[in-house]
Amino acid sequence: MTQILNKPEDTVSQILNGVSFIHQEKLERVPQTGIIKYRHVTNQSVAIISGGGSGHEPAHFGYVGRGMLQASISGPVFVPPSVEDILQGIEEINAPKGTLLIIKNFEADVRNFLEAKKQARQKGYLVEHVIVNDDCSIEKGSYRKRRRGVAGTVFVHKILGAAAANGMNLNDLKELGEDVVASMNTLGVAVSSGRKIGSDERVFKLEKDEISFGIGIHGEPGYRKEPFFSSEYLANELLNKLLVRYSEISSKQFAILINGLGSTTLMEQFVFSNDIKRLLELEQVNCVFQKSGNFMTSTDMSGISLTLLEIKDLSWLDYLKQETDAFAW
Amino acid sequence: MTQILNKPEDTVSQILNGVSFIHQEKLERVPQTGIIKYRHVTNQSVAIISGGGSGHEPAHFGYVGRGMLQASISGPVFVPPSVEDILQGIEEINAPKGTLLIIKNFEADVRNFLEAKKQARQKGYLVEHVIVNDDCSIEKGSYRKRRRGVAGTVFVHKILGAAAANGMNLNDLKELGEDVVASMNTLGVAVSSGRKIGSDERVFKLEKDEISFGIGIHGEPGYRKEPFFSSEYLANELLNKLLVRYSEISSKQFAILINGLGSTTLMEQFVFSNDIKRLLELEQVNCVFQKSGNFMTSTDMSGISLTLLEIKDLSWLDYLKQETDAFAW
Repeated sequence: MTQILNKPEDTVSQILNGVSFIHQEKLERVPQTGIIKYRHVTNQSVAIISGGGSGHEPAHFGYVGRGMLQASISGPVFVPPSVEDILQGIEEINAPKGTLLIIKNFEADVRNFLEAKKQARQKGYLVEHVIVNDDCSIEKGSYRKRRRGVAGTVFVHKILGAAAANGMNLNDLKELGEDVVASMNTLGVAVSSGRKIGSDERVFKLEKDEISFGIGIHGEPGYRKEPFFSSEYLANELLNKLLVRYSEISSKQFAILINGLGSTTLMEQFVFSNDIKRLLELEQVNCVFQKSGNFMTSTDMSGISLTLLEIKDLSWLDYLKQETDAFAW
Repeated sequence: MTQILNKPEDTVSQILNGVSFIHQEKLERVPQTGIIKYRHVTNQSVAIISGGGSGHEPAHFGYVGRGMLQASISGPVFVPPSVEDILQGIEEINAPKGTLLIIKNFEADVRNFLEAKKQARQKGYLVEHVIVNDDCSIEKGSYRKRRRGVAGTVFVHKILGAAAANGMNLNDLKELGEDVVASMNTLGVAVSSGRKIGSDERVFKLEKDEISFGIGIHGEPGYRKEPFFSSEYLANELLNKLLVRYSEISSKQFAILINGLGSTTLMEQFVFSNDIKRLLELEQVNCVFQKSGNFMTSTDMSGISLTLLEIKDLSWLDYLKQETDAFAW
């Protein structure tokens, strides 16, 4: 099956130029970089900046806008942005009240963002960071990796972006971000692996009616293959694996994010959403906010992830509901 | 490859329940029907209603909202809604200033919508209709079908919905709709066919690096298979086939819609968007409005369509830009 691309090595630059064409009223690319910035940046608030490898579209440029990110920084496909680009992003926005970096928990991402933070501080910029590690699928030593940052990152963008727009200061934003991350869990499954760019090769192989639990968003296979029975069965399995991470569920409020991983149709996402709805009722989970769509993808992987966020303070819900003009929220 | 569904026969009802769960602040399903209606319907304006078979998500419920549709009516997958559901939709909204039906030009859709219109009129409702036939791929007798209604339908929803919200009366809306339809052309290509629901069978077969020109949104194969060279080559071919339908191009203004057909990644859509941007500049086409995303899909078909709308009156551009809370615009 053909990919509608040109030379693979030109892909990221062409994506960013395409984004800044389609969303030209709001977004512009800083030429020759992976930076997409908001056209109407104000210096009134702390700037929230995020980024990561490409291949996760609409992450992260889809979240640049009023009340979310002030800029996003894209690296090559599945490779974090360079220290230079991250540093330039901080300098481009040049926020007098400081910059908060939202980083997905992958070793190379954390390394580059923290190095850029260090260099920016040496130049006199106020910079803090939050690391998102919502993926709860990796628990055992075999994979040797910590909890990764996946779709729940979008909730962090939204909550911190809204709080910043409302005037929260840098230190309080960092603390809020850490509270949100600690209250959030995501689990994803693939029904087919994504392909490498410009290739028909799938990153891992699944048989028909086989799904992979606990996949990553860089094509990493999951920790276990299982037979697929139905959307309802899958919803039940994902929701229960997430709910065991919370106690006294009936006294709590939750936000949920149902995320398509790239090639999953909206048809499937809405059928799955309906299964989640029925299970939430059955389990007496008080869901106060819900979203479904393609928020954090893994090229053309077909599959779905479910994120649960415990709303520990009602302001979080206000932040989730606050208006934004970011095109992918 | 697995589809994340339950029993195929339950799919449409589960989609509609999923939509009304995820978008519960704005949308509700009329129980036991294919009707999704806006929760905050006012009687101040003419009601715009559209619908069609399922399998085109987010069409059409994704366009229900302030300044677009007041209701959408979904039929079974690739089968138009029943006369009863369409009639009930008109009655549910019960707009004193009248109802305008937007119909995609497929024989069975037109038949059911016009029969519902007739019955509604017999009951005393003011009802008019507009038929959208933007697909310019079918020209020769061999296919025996007229120009079909495809992705451009979403532009008609937006323009008529905004005009209605601004107070335009029923007859003027019908006339505006016909003008917009006459100014619009769409051409789509598939790089892989969609599958039937609950089956792995693809509706038609394409080899690697082969694309099908002029596909329909119900899995219809195109009129010609061609080799795939690059996104840029494809953009050039699609754009030129559309531009020949207009004269004196340099004196005109256009809106464009780049539409993913179901499983096409945003990465591909933005790369293709960038190619279109460069070609528009090269051909000195004055593009004043542009959108890219999954607007009118064909289950999990992978492919893209391009729509060109000549902006014959500047009010059309205002209508396109007017705010709406429909979730898929």
